[in-house]
Amino acid sequence: MTKPLRIAIAGLGTVGAGIIKIVQKHGDLLAARAGRPIEIIAISARSRSKDRGVDLSAYAWEDDPVALARRDDVDLLIEVMGGEDGPAKAATETALAAGKHVVTANKAMLAMNGHALAELAETNNVALRYEAAVAGGIPIVKALTEGLAGNGIERVMGVMNGTCNYILTVMEDTGADYADVLKDAQDLGYAEADPAVDVGGIDAAHKLALLAATAFGTKVDFAGVKIEGIERIELTDIKDAADMGYRIKLLGVARMNADGLEQRMQPCLVPANSPLGQLEGVTNMVVVDGDFVGQTVYQGPGAGEGPTASAIMGDVMDIARGLVIPVFGQPANTLTQAARSSVGADAAYYLRFTLDDQPGVLAVITAILGEHGISINRMRQYDHADNKAPVLIVTHKVARTTLDGALNVIDASDVSLAAPVAIRIETV
Amino acid sequence: MTKPLRIAIAGLGTVGAGIIKIVQKHGDLLAARAGRPIEIIAISARSRSKDRGVDLSAYAWEDDPVALARRDDVDLLIEVMGGEDGPAKAATETALAAGKHVVTANKAMLAMNGHALAELAETNNVALRYEAAVAGGIPIVKALTEGLAGNGIERVMGVMNGTCNYILTVMEDTGADYADVLKDAQDLGYAEADPAVDVGGIDAAHKLALLAATAFGTKVDFAGVKIEGIERIELTDIKDAADMGYRIKLLGVARMNADGLEQRMQPCLVPANSPLGQLEGVTNMVVVDGDFVGQTVYQGPGAGEGPTASAIMGDVMDIARGLVIPVFGQPANTLTQAARSSVGADAAYYLRFTLDDQPGVLAVITAILGEHGISINRMRQYDHADNKAPVLIVTHKVARTTLDGALNVIDASDVSLAAPVAIRIETV
Repeated sequence: MTKPLRIAIAGLGTVGAGIIKIVQKHGDLLAARAGRPIEIIAISARSRSKDRGVDLSAYAWEDDPVALARRDDVDLLIEVMGGEDGPAKAATETALAAGKHVVTANKAMLAMNGHALAELAETNNVALRYEAAVAGGIPIVKALTEGLAGNGIERVMGVMNGTCNYILTVMEDTGADYADVLKDAQDLGYAEADPAVDVGGIDAAHKLALLAATAFGTKVDFAGVKIEGIERIELTDIKDAADMGYRIKLLGVARMNADGLEQRMQPCLVPANSPLGQLEGVTNMVVVDGDFVGQTVYQGPGAGEGPTASAIMGDVMDIARGLVIPVFGQPANTLTQAARSSVGADAAYYLRFTLDDQPGVLAVITAILGEHGISINRMRQYDHADNKAPVLIVTHKVARTTLDGALNVIDASDVSLAAPVAIRIETV
Repeated sequence: MTKPLRIAIAGLGTVGAGIIKIVQKHGDLLAARAGRPIEIIAISARSRSKDRGVDLSAYAWEDDPVALARRDDVDLLIEVMGGEDGPAKAATETALAAGKHVVTANKAMLAMNGHALAELAETNNVALRYEAAVAGGIPIVKALTEGLAGNGIERVMGVMNGTCNYILTVMEDTGADYADVLKDAQDLGYAEADPAVDVGGIDAAHKLALLAATAFGTKVDFAGVKIEGIERIELTDIKDAADMGYRIKLLGVARMNADGLEQRMQPCLVPANSPLGQLEGVTNMVVVDGDFVGQTVYQGPGAGEGPTASAIMGDVMDIARGLVIPVFGQPANTLTQAARSSVGADAAYYLRFTLDDQPGVLAVITAILGEHGISINRMRQYDHADNKAPVLIVTHKVARTTLDGALNVIDASDVSLAAPVAIRIETV
């Protein structure tokens, strides 16, 4: 029997409790697979007395997570407290500097401080792993850094926020409005009380920034992600998109263009019959295009006790087996500082106009689009009870700047009764 | 710069050529990711003169793959010759015994000899990896052995033969018969000239046996896989299944039951709106249920030069980074010899009867089913031009032995004009 891997857990919320359940249930299995026992030595959380449904009596207790990270009898710190700095970052830095491995689920911390932490880990020859920080139980970081390591990655994209996909799915299924579904989701505990992080796309953008760095060998650049949440999606967009064979998803897309790294987290239309288009509820999905493998797709639960604890344990098992690879797949000092792509690739767009129902209005907007060189692929006008004529247009591929120019002219014209809506159609 | 990983390639078909293309295109990237260069030292194939579209001039040549495997200047052998024994096995054994790592795409060799080869690898403290042997470019072996290593696996199932899924998809799309589509697929080079391995399910069963061993910590037991190909699927089954909300897939399922390991490779019905039900063409998909993570789904190209070479290189990169884990995820001497589950779990079945169109025939077969305790969930009878009435029944869950008992009685009765067809409905 080789010597055990001795771990400490900072944070005993649902994920921390889940990790303890795995170790307690699968001790023999983990030891057989890793070739050595996995032993929880010590734990730390805000409240010592709270009942978490697991027996903690065998583990040493530390009130201070930094003291936990410093313990001589610990080889690896699991950080599941959360928070982009504060105690989580302090404990992580302390552990790495002390030559201990760190496994974390903390996307915000890594999105904001990932590069410095990677340098600290690699200087100390220890692992800093974050599978649980991206797409919950799906082993997507492992796929990118290891399974697909023979490929140049061309694009990584996905639905990485379960709350948003849940809300969009329920809106479509029930015909309820965004605000009502969000409120229900909050009441059910699915959505954060502060919706900006969730439905505003920030949480998903944290994940995208980590995947982009991992895929393209670039320094994490969260500030470079163009973020747009689902707050402005209306029921009519969902219905009209469906009518034309599309579904709306809060989609993160990262791609390396000639002028730099494109990172977008925004509502997009995807074909209803594509894997992304078929995704339902809180499930996450990541789609990776590699230059040799082609397209691979990964789907699974994006959050929750079991899935997140599973991802944490996958990282722990790797470390127990002796795998120490660079944090973002290649050494931090080889990661490049990518320019931010100014425009992104051309794309087709779904446009929704609200037009004054007078003769000739369609001619006005189609003429404006034509003058801007924007070609129309499909158009529909729906029946309406008032003078506001809903008109949908799907364009051929166009640069976003060109499109915005045309939409500004239309918006300023007499025929447009409300700001035009433009949603990108992603090629999948 | 750490010292290079020196590799040899035995077999220069499309996959071997693909590996060389990756190394030649991505040399710097691979070195950055692995922390050391990946260098091809020597190669071997049947014909030295054949043009493979890649420059081989920098590599030493060996006529004999066993001599290649024995070279002192090689750390790792890539075996992409194929064949369950013969030169592939001899070269693999030679390399392992000489303390060299082996990466292989050879599912037949591992399905038949996996346990002995795993013992040989582990005795010599080297890696034997086989990501490319299962589901092509999808990093599913990695997901099972590493990413999901914190889970007890409850079930692994999937569509692992692109040819079969292609044939079933084309039959559905075009209304063509099985024999015609198979012939087209053979003419196009999609299907093997000897269809037994492909459409007979053997190729897919090889893969299932490897996944089952990896998932459940059992010795590979290819002979324990119940194999049924798609040869007997008729167009009417595909249409009638679709009519009831299902699609037919050649589905491999492995699960550990109370009485032993269940391994089945057989046509199954899956809900049309499930990930498996939505799978099209030659794409592969593997679905894994873990006790903590829940269900994760992996989709991608199951064959071809680029995808297979990508999977090979994923394994090579792991080894370059120093990862040496047991072949089936835990040491070979801890793998158990599982009993073969006698019945498998109860399941719902789709039944197709061809009945003599006389008053009372439906009463006869429903009575026989009732006498055997088989409960009917849904039933349909279709219009017909002759005296052969097509009747479809979807049962509630029943043991296969019970079902077979009832079907034998019905088959022997006067009312049945053709052997009843029974296709299992898999819960997804």
